[in-house]
Amino acid sequence: MLNELKKAVCEANLSLADSGLVIDTWGNVSGIDADRRNVVIKPSGVPYKGMEPRHMVVVSLADGKVVEGDLKPSSDTATHLEIYRNFAGVGGVVHTHSLFATAWAQAQRAIPVLGTTHADYFNGPVPCTREMTADEIDRDYEANTGKVIIERFRSLNPLHLPGVLVAGHGPFAWGQSAAQAVHNAIILEHLAQLASCTLALAANATPIADALLNKHFGRKHGPGSYYGQK
Amino acid sequence: MLNELKKAVCEANLSLADSGLVIDTWGNVSGIDADRRNVVIKPSGVPYKGMEPRHMVVVSLADGKVVEGDLKPSSDTATHLEIYRNFAGVGGVVHTHSLFATAWAQAQRAIPVLGTTHADYFNGPVPCTREMTADEIDRDYEANTGKVIIERFRSLNPLHLPGVLVAGHGPFAWGQSAAQAVHNAIILEHLAQLASCTLALAANATPIADALLNKHFGRKHGPGSYYGQK
Amino acid sequence: MLNELKKAVCEANLSLADSGLVIDTWGNVSGIDADRRNVVIKPSGVPYKGMEPRHMVVVSLADGKVVEGDLKPSSDTATHLEIYRNFAGVGGVVHTHSLFATAWAQAQRAIPVLGTTHADYFNGPVPCTREMTADEIDRDYEANTGKVIIERFRSLNPLHLPGVLVAGHGPFAWGQSAAQAVHNAIILEHLAQLASCTLALAANATPIADALLNKHFGRKHGPGSYYGQK
Amino acid sequence: MLNELKKAVCEANLSLADSGLVIDTWGNVSGIDADRRNVVIKPSGVPYKGMEPRHMVVVSLADGKVVEGDLKPSSDTATHLEIYRNFAGVGGVVHTHSLFATAWAQAQRAIPVLGTTHADYFNGPVPCTREMTADEIDRDYEANTGKVIIERFRSLNPLHLPGVLVAGHGPFAWGQSAAQAVHNAIILEHLAQLASCTLALAANATPIADALLNKHFGRKHGPGSYYGQK
Repeated sequence: MLNELKKAVCEANLSLADSGLVIDTWGNVSGIDADRRNVVIKPSGVPYKGMEPRHMVVVSLADGKVVEGDLKPSSDTATHLEIYRNFAGVGGVVHTHSLFATAWAQAQRAIPVLGTTHADYFNGPVPCTREMTADEIDRDYEANTGKVIIERFRSLNPLHLPGVLVAGHGPFAWGQSAAQAVHNAIILEHLAQLASCTLALAANATPIADALLNKHFGRKHGPGSYYGQK
Repeated sequence: MLNELKKAVCEANLSLADSGLVIDTWGNVSGIDADRRNVVIKPSGVPYKGMEPRHMVVVSLADGKVVEGDLKPSSDTATHLEIYRNFAGVGGVVHTHSLFATAWAQAQRAIPVLGTTHADYFNGPVPCTREMTADEIDRDYEANTGKVIIERFRSLNPLHLPGVLVAGHGPFAWGQSAAQAVHNAIILEHLAQLASCTLALAANATPIADALLNKHFGRKHGPGSYYGQK
Repeated sequence: MLNELKKAVCEANLSLADSGLVIDTWGNVSGIDADRRNVVIKPSGVPYKGMEPRHMVVVSLADGKVVEGDLKPSSDTATHLEIYRNFAGVGGVVHTHSLFATAWAQAQRAIPVLGTTHADYFNGPVPCTREMTADEIDRDYEANTGKVIIERFRSLNPLHLPGVLVAGHGPFAWGQSAAQAVHNAIILEHLAQLASCTLALAANATPIADALLNKHFGRKHGPGSYYGQK
Repeated sequence: MLNELKKAVCEANLSLADSGLVIDTWGNVSGIDADRRNVVIKPSGVPYKGMEPRHMVVVSLADGKVVEGDLKPSSDTATHLEIYRNFAGVGGVVHTHSLFATAWAQAQRAIPVLGTTHADYFNGPVPCTREMTADEIDRDYEANTGKVIIERFRSLNPLHLPGVLVAGHGPFAWGQSAAQAVHNAIILEHLAQLASCTLALAANATPIADALLNKHFGRKHGPGSYYGQK
């Protein structure tokens, strides 16, 4: 079942490994099927080398149970599912421990919009979740990780902000597909590095004006966009 | 038409991608023909992989209209044209979001002449534009980006300072040809990184003496130059 | 003798070189045999290129004397032996001068647990030894280097903290095998870099809560672990 | 003439380019013949790609005149000659603009001995020259660059400190041969980066004790050395 999606999710996981954003077996990518009933995700703790579509695990969106697959799904599966349940229009989710985005998550700082590079992809700061309580950590940790992400986006549009920093942990990113989610994870890491380099030069650097933010986001996204060949 | 220039501009775009200065489809290189009537530029949002000279777009210097080509020109075309119109002797223009030069642009700081590496290529600090007004951003944004560059160079010689930082955005560089413009963009990124590493060690590092600046720039440029095999 | 172990130790040394953690001939990996009588270690100052299992040196755990091999063992052999003698369950030891871990050792700071990436591998801060006395340096320097490591771990569990920073020198890491020791050395370098990037953003970043530390370490280690396919 | 030396110097220049320490045509390596009459050096401003032993230029140590070769010698030749004339035992000299060593030179700070990695190669801080006067810059700039290096070493042993930072410019390194000089330039760059990373963690990091410095330098150099297979 879902052979096309398995292939797409496997390829997205391999492209994540090629991107330099993961070391060891860290990081995982998932994708959801068109009717939003099942999610295909990387197996837990399996090396990227030799990974094939048939190793992908199919889990039910409703209860997270394995529907198909011989391997255990990623230990972060419950977080992915929480994101799919709450963010309509999201077709793929990625989790990494990429260097600079994780540093911002560990510093528990949202990444401010310091330039147009950021504004081309994120229509505002990359948000950072609150710390989780001991109770949230002890019981249903991975599902609760998803819940603090959702909580943080209560008044934000996830389609205009395709990523988040989980405090003390690392980034999650998403997109219309697994491939686009990986693309956004790569961009997020670049924006985090760029913001770090900027603050090293000007600790009090101020965000760009709203006019410039909206101009650049609007050049690439929405009805008035004019970037690319569309 | 302009087949040689298309080939040169395409090669310059590909060498920019190989240089590591661009990620995704960001960055664009253009070149102007000998009689300064038409500009050849990269198409907008097209992947570097598989890019060929026939994909390059020819636009008129006078009004920016497409003279030849099936694709839309780079969304930054109007900025390139503004530079060609005002900087005599410039034959190629490059725009990137390279990491360290963009960090300086986001910090809105000119890059000071902290050593001879800088002086070998730039005869003074790499200037940074002022912020654009909401009005300049809302109407003719790309042409106005060019205009704030020109404004910044009112009393500067663009042939002695082959690049600029656009505040909150990123660098533009130029040269006698598209290839030389790419070369200068690579040097500019290196100088930006070198200055960042220097300030991390000595936040109040002072610029080198004028005698040393002039000596090094003069070793490589102008009538008294003695670097290389000329 | 010990042909399998020689092969494993040689491969671990070569993988260390491939990891980018060593330059020149720096760095060395050893492994101990099953009955803990002999240790196999890299020869001193020999290039990695062309290194073969037959070049590995066998030394006695009891007195450090060469049992087999034509080459001199690593000058750090006595430190390795001290670790094997005191840390039961350690099967492989690595020493590197990897960039960020060495920077922390030179700064004489333990690496705090700033996030879950760290907690996945180290169940607490990566400890740093005290400075050695002139006397400890002048006589039996390498053995004394081992002794200050052991002293630092008096109330710590080396199987839950698979590495240490030697003040003013650099990191040692260990594991159940030579290969796992190299893996832990790579992880330690990554954690050191990640902590450096974090402190650059938030000089007073606080360690994660114990609940989160224990959750993540417990996900991967011990009876309640549920990461991977076990 | 001097075919072996030309080959060695050409190879050293190419290995310098491979090391990542130079961009463009920057950087140059020379070597001196056994009777210290002639120096073989890289031609000025010539690309590394395609460089062959026959392109090397032979100059006289006494007066710097070209003895053999069709190309102009490196513009830094006079600095190299000054070093050979004053530092007995030096057989090869290298000049680079490598990133971190140049940052220290621009910051005009000597690199302190923050750890044993440094002590393995340099028996003290890497010294930094004073700034040159306008007069020294205007007349015989390159020879005067050599003279401020010699001045800085008045009470230092160049064989125990195989490199220097020229203030506002960049590093020179040397060794018994052209190849060893390149090796030392690579080590110097690494030490500069390591010291930068250390100061970022501990701005007031103190140098290691003399006992540790002498122990490590002595392990690798001089009559009591015991590193390697000698």
